[in-house]
Amino acid sequence: MSIWDGEADQRIWGDCPRRVVVIGAGFAGLAVIQGLKKAPACVSVIDRQNHHLFQPLLYQVATASLNPSDIAAPIRRIVRGQKNTEILLADVTGIDVDRRVVTLADGETPYDVLVLAAGATHSYFGHPEWEEHAPGLKSVEDALEIRRRMLLAFEIAERETDEAVRREWLTFVVVGGGPTGVELAGTLREVARMTLAKDFAHIDPATARVILVEGSPRVLPPYSTKLSESALRQLQGLGVEVRTGAIVTEIDAEGVAIGDERIASRTVLWAAGVAASPLGRSLGVPLDRAGRVMIEPDLTVPGHPEIYVIGDLAHLEQDGKAIPGVAPAASQMGKHAARNILLALKGEPTRPFKYVDKGSMATIGRGAAVAQIGRWNISGFVAWLLWMFVHVLFLIGFRNKLLVIIQWAWSYLSYDRGARLITGRAEGPLVQGLTEKRLPSTTEAEAIHG
Amino acid sequence: MSIWDGEADQRIWGDCPRRVVVIGAGFAGLAVIQGLKKAPACVSVIDRQNHHLFQPLLYQVATASLNPSDIAAPIRRIVRGQKNTEILLADVTGIDVDRRVVTLADGETPYDVLVLAAGATHSYFGHPEWEEHAPGLKSVEDALEIRRRMLLAFEIAERETDEAVRREWLTFVVVGGGPTGVELAGTLREVARMTLAKDFAHIDPATARVILVEGSPRVLPPYSTKLSESALRQLQGLGVEVRTGAIVTEIDAEGVAIGDERIASRTVLWAAGVAASPLGRSLGVPLDRAGRVMIEPDLTVPGHPEIYVIGDLAHLEQDGKAIPGVAPAASQMGKHAARNILLALKGEPTRPFKYVDKGSMATIGRGAAVAQIGRWNISGFVAWLLWMFVHVLFLIGFRNKLLVIIQWAWSYLSYDRGARLITGRAEGPLVQGLTEKRLPSTTEAEAIHG
Repeated sequence: MSIWDGEADQRIWGDCPRRVVVIGAGFAGLAVIQGLKKAPACVSVIDRQNHHLFQPLLYQVATASLNPSDIAAPIRRIVRGQKNTEILLADVTGIDVDRRVVTLADGETPYDVLVLAAGATHSYFGHPEWEEHAPGLKSVEDALEIRRRMLLAFEIAERETDEAVRREWLTFVVVGGGPTGVELAGTLREVARMTLAKDFAHIDPATARVILVEGSPRVLPPYSTKLSESALRQLQGLGVEVRTGAIVTEIDAEGVAIGDERIASRTVLWAAGVAASPLGRSLGVPLDRAGRVMIEPDLTVPGHPEIYVIGDLAHLEQDGKAIPGVAPAASQMGKHAARNILLALKGEPTRPFKYVDKGSMATIGRGAAVAQIGRWNISGFVAWLLWMFVHVLFLIGFRNKLLVIIQWAWSYLSYDRGARLITGRAEGPLVQGLTEKRLPSTTEAEAIHG
Repeated sequence: MSIWDGEADQRIWGDCPRRVVVIGAGFAGLAVIQGLKKAPACVSVIDRQNHHLFQPLLYQVATASLNPSDIAAPIRRIVRGQKNTEILLADVTGIDVDRRVVTLADGETPYDVLVLAAGATHSYFGHPEWEEHAPGLKSVEDALEIRRRMLLAFEIAERETDEAVRREWLTFVVVGGGPTGVELAGTLREVARMTLAKDFAHIDPATARVILVEGSPRVLPPYSTKLSESALRQLQGLGVEVRTGAIVTEIDAEGVAIGDERIASRTVLWAAGVAASPLGRSLGVPLDRAGRVMIEPDLTVPGHPEIYVIGDLAHLEQDGKAIPGVAPAASQMGKHAARNILLALKGEPTRPFKYVDKGSMATIGRGAAVAQIGRWNISGFVAWLLWMFVHVLFLIGFRNKLLVIIQWAWSYLSYDRGARLITGRAEGPLVQGLTEKRLPSTTEAEAIHG
């Protein structure tokens, strides 16, 4: 079955070749675009950001280790020199599969082939009101907001004179014990214990509590039991309080509730729920419970051989398990979708996708990580080195690789973090949340330092 | 005259020493703080930012060359280990000189000695409504906003189909021909001509116009005529259109007016007026026309030997000329104020400040700069090398120095700029300003590239 309605060959090679529209330039979208470099088609990439983001390192921006531009590269820069490709900064609002048109916030555009790689966003399990109190980590803006809240909490604690309220500012809750939650919690403790340790006059940042809350019985649920246990021990070694089997029932400006229990905390971070982009819904095809599109083995949508859905937005089972929503799977899908599009352009049949699991790894802190590669379970320093190596390897661009290596080396040797800036809204709700503030009072400073 | 009202010695060395409050941790404030490291007094530093900013390189953040954290360092990190010092993140709203109290947005605090180093902000010459259309460059947030507007202008031009409107998006006006304006204008042309040159399908970024508007008869008015002429030639060599003797009479969302003439431009940057911080007014002492505090030769305020005003907020004449509002002058004032405070603490008389002008320099672009050192006028590549050397030398911290050198070397060799991210508000007024948008259309892309 060809994806063209007749007279394909002639039009493909003619003056105005077929148009492939790719929505989203994450790992999946970027792999498609690069795979279509020599395609006899015109490729239009639509993204609402001008940059591709290396999300596996985003938590390092949130925790003040790296700069946004170290892990993000302009999409234009990456695909520069790809003559059949144009990039459009725009907000996609829907897809009309009958008219074969993508609707934008400011217009619409037709497609012959559509690749939907719009990814996922946070899900607050039916509690959208939690978002304000517990930001998630998906975009550069999210990361800078988390960084701002984290650093501001210590600043406010320094000025707070009510000891109980001060403890609330020095208590951090991370909801969700997957890789992102584990990374955030571990790094938060490191920041408190090492980076900030000597920088305050009235508080001891090392006393900050970091509580990791996970609903299932163990952290890193997709990993082997052995690695989950190792991760737990490594987290506890850093001083993170891990609460497994704990379901968060309420989040507000002053803390979280786990059933009847209340944890008073002024900084709550969300690493729990992920929901597929709402664009999947506009295709009018079956979705799974998380809103992901149920796709065919060749990555197209049932009944629509001209529409591919890939990456975190796609649901495809292999060997009885859903392919996980991770960067390597997204990249592999993108490459395969490009291959299938090229086959279809030649009038040849598409081929089924086969996911190759090359392993997974999560970092916990300085010298602390877990890695699962085939049957190997690796923990601690070796896993941490491996994690660093792999992440630098896949980072886009020599400049970014070099800068990240230097900053990691610097942080490792100095215990410092280079991006400790509070930027953005000067007068956020957090500052308004202050009750009593510390005014300059030098006797206490002397007492602590003396 | 002692700054203490009696029984000074005993209280200085006693349990609760005198309190020095420093407002602002820019170049002037930081120098005071560091100079008071061993002072027999408690030092409270109040700033509304958590970081000291190396403002001379801020335009490089605005033009996507550097990251904010490359040129900013946490104040706590810089003065770490200074046991008599506390740092408070707070917003100062006024000073009550009679009660010797600083009022904050959320409280108040007493002082024995006050150092006011609150700096300057933008002035729109009585046209505050211009600010929205022509952002200035004082803070990290300002720089990121300028970066966002600059990069977004090219993205919008890429999608714009009305040729006249597209030209407006590709026209940039910089108001003010001092060092900041010259640096912004020169770098903007470089970004358009080199960095972005090959990245778009429908526009040629190199055709972007950059117009520098200066009210006085020449650019860089404080420099020698010879260097002004050289700067003009270097700017013109980069393709900047320089308009001297041109007074801007109106700025709105669609351009600027110079008398009867109108320049249609969607991106206007403000580098013209600077006004002293309004805090100077609350001292109740004489100010100059720009709102700066007229200070005594020992840097104190007339009638208030316990109040120092330094940096951009101070007006002091030397050899018949006002000391300029530049970083070296601010640092020198800060060091001297600290020395005078130490003298006063010992009951000794304070000494008059003497500004040593070590020269000034401004960069224009790749290999283009001017420097005036004593009687030497230096232009071009040598001035540019000197400029880079001096700016790296004075940047705070080894890490920042290293990262800046690497990124400059990278930019020089690759013509690339590492921080080309559009972040912040996704739906700004700029996007709403779009009239017709380009929808994916591949034939034209082919035509341009083919």
